Amino acid sequence: MTLKLYYARPSAYARPVWLALLEKQLPFELIPVDLSGEQFQPEFLAVNPFGRVPVLVDGDHRVVESLAILDYLEAQYPNPSLMPQAPHHIATVRMVQLITLNELLPALFRLLTQPKNLNQASDAQQTELAYARSRASSTLKFLARLLGEKPYFAGDQLTLAEIVAGTVIHRLPELGIALQPRLAHWSERLLARPTWQQIALSPAEQRDFQRYMRVLPKIWQRRRRQKLKALTQGP
Amino acid sequence: MTLKLYYARPSAYARPVWLALLEKQLPFELIPVDLSGEQFQPEFLAVNPFGRVPVLVDGDHRVVESLAILDYLEAQYPNPSLMPQAPHHIATVRMVQLITLNELLPALFRLLTQPKNLNQASDAQQTELAYARSRASSTLKFLARLLGEKPYFAGDQLTLAEIVAGTVIHRLPELGIALQPRLAHWSERLLARPTWQQIALSPAEQRDFQRYMRVLPKIWQRRRRQKLKALTQGP
Repeated sequence: MTLKLYYARPSAYARPVWLALLEKQLPFELIPVDLSGEQFQPEFLAVNPFGRVPVLVDGDHRVVESLAILDYLEAQYPNPSLMPQAPHHIATVRMVQLITLNELLPALFRLLTQPKNLNQASDAQQTELAYARSRASSTLKFLARLLGEKPYFAGDQLTLAEIVAGTVIHRLPELGIALQPRLAHWSERLLARPTWQQIALSPAEQRDFQRYMRVLPKIWQRRRRQKLKALTQGP
Repeated sequence: MTLKLYYARPSAYARPVWLALLEKQLPFELIPVDLSGEQFQPEFLAVNPFGRVPVLVDGDHRVVESLAILDYLEAQYPNPSLMPQAPHHIATVRMVQLITLNELLPALFRLLTQPKNLNQASDAQQTELAYARSRASSTLKFLARLLGEKPYFAGDQLTLAEIVAGTVIHRLPELGIALQPRLAHWSERLLARPTWQQIALSPAEQRDFQRYMRVLPKIWQRRRRQKLKALTQGP
């Protein structure tokens, strides 16, 4: 039986799951979802009522939320393992996953929508971008300290910490955020892996995604309006 | 050696950790952090540079991010266990944890700041509140389906799903969001446990927290301004 992954190639939430499927060498089918609106169509809302990718379908099991999917895959398909055993390593892996999603991604998303010519940004935008840069830098400092001198966050083993942070951190230098040498070497080692190369975005795809990030707030606003209209009109 | 938990009594992120320590009957010391500004003082930023509670300190190990702390406790102090073994139950527990934090809490936070007299809300606020109510309701529908006819989300065992969702869901009826009968019974069973009673907030504490929620955006704005000022002034 083949696993099914609903995803979008550039989605920062879907990419770690895609990578985990490749690292675990599982057979899977990719089902693309066009994030410019398809996620709110009835067909996809029947798959995930929250209108978000990724979603994994494994026979009777349907799992939403990227971190939940990663843990499901690890439990159901434990070889090769992407989780360490020692409690302090488990703490590190979880911190890296959550800090990447909760602290680093909001900063990355903000920086991805910056105008090419920064002089075109208003004062308010400049302030927001400065805050995003400062937030990204202090988060990287924290992560570099967690990595220390180890090859991977949990020692010698590639884990879900790499699967999640390793799909985000390499994008920061192109946005003007420097990486500490340790993190830079760690990221280069990951990008050299065949699995990371398999999910690499072309420059055109990256540009498309940046364009999408700029219209994303409007897409969600439209969705909110539609939902509220449906509520006031009744069934 | 005693565990140390930096927390704030009403914090929706700290309460699950506090509860897990009680359920696991571990010895711990509570260190209160005043969220009206103490979290951004140098003393606390040395504990957690992100300025957030909870933080757990266990000897040499310092863990931030509530879900990371819960997994660390489970790995380091496995008895009684708060995680199931079956992969599909693991998927359910993780979905409940993440959906509670990512979908339900934003709606709860919005509803906690609603004016007592709804007629005082502007049209824009009314729309936002309607959206928050609709978001909370559809999330509860999803969770009720995950619970099904089982006593707990993962079957007969109390798990981290209850620890996280069980500190949030019981607050929704007082904000005008009805619970499905199954979820209501599940919540009542949890509230009857001595551990849940031990962390209960008094009505005065709940009012204080609602007041705090209203000023929270200003506290973070001030923090952003301070951080940017420090950046432009240099070291």
